[in-house]
Amino acid sequence: MKSQRITMVTLAVSDLERSRKFYSDIGWEEASGGNDMIAFYKAGGQFFALYSKAALTKDIGMPIHERSTGNVTMATNYNSREEVDKAFKDAMTAGAVEISTPAEIFWGGYSGNFADPDGHMWELAHNPFWTLDDDGFIVGEA
Amino acid sequence: MKSQRITMVTLAVSDLERSRKFYSDIGWEEASGGNDMIAFYKAGGQFFALYSKAALTKDIGMPIHERSTGNVTMATNYNSREEVDKAFKDAMTAGAVEISTPAEIFWGGYSGNFADPDGHMWELAHNPFWTLDDDGFIVGEA
Repeated sequence: MKSQRITMVTLAVSDLERSRKFYSDIGWEEASGGNDMIAFYKAGGQFFALYSKAALTKDIGMPIHERSTGNVTMATNYNSREEVDKAFKDAMTAGAVEISTPAEIFWGGYSGNFADPDGHMWELAHNPFWTLDDDGFIVGEA
Repeated sequence: MKSQRITMVTLAVSDLERSRKFYSDIGWEEASGGNDMIAFYKAGGQFFALYSKAALTKDIGMPIHERSTGNVTMATNYNSREEVDKAFKDAMTAGAVEISTPAEIFWGGYSGNFADPDGHMWELAHNPFWTLDDDGFIVGEA
């Protein structure tokens, strides 16, 4: 098994119930296994998790900073600009903070960025150079 | 296509060549498409990217904080404690900063955390409650 894998992406959140509601509002369905410290979401063969800051601090054994906006971005890609616009609008409706409205970006794609309730950054993008399969996974190389 | 997907995880890095060397040293093979601003790595149907802070700041149109250790964790899971120990040792050899040495954690697994050259957190874990397929993807629910 290669080391070149990401099994799970975990976001530290200050209020797990607030974050559960936000991700539910933008269409994420929680998987089983969660509790009052953590919520799991299946994303293909990975998990995405929301983890209360108190529990995560205990887990890793060090204090963590309050905000991390911009240093790590999770991206969800779509097949068209219209799909990006719709998903971005849905996120705004759910209470996301707009960082940049969807627009043409210098690298040749179309994307917008929003922050979740803890300031975690999500990019919604259409990259005309990438092909997605029916499940939204990337086909081929970059 | 569901919105519940992560297409790419991008880390902001202050010195792209330093980061390229670090990820190469821990066994990641760069995909095509990179340049002096960004490096792409295929991880299943996703990409993992290292993006120079200067370019990312331009991309998202806002300043970003210097460090984010702990607010976002990328995890790579293994089938045994021994595999975790080996991968953790490889990361140390590559110059990673040890955050927590691999040990039994309160949630019932065995994991260690290290920080990459920009302070981005990686967890190497064996979760006895999860089954991984031959490619390292998670089988079933959490």
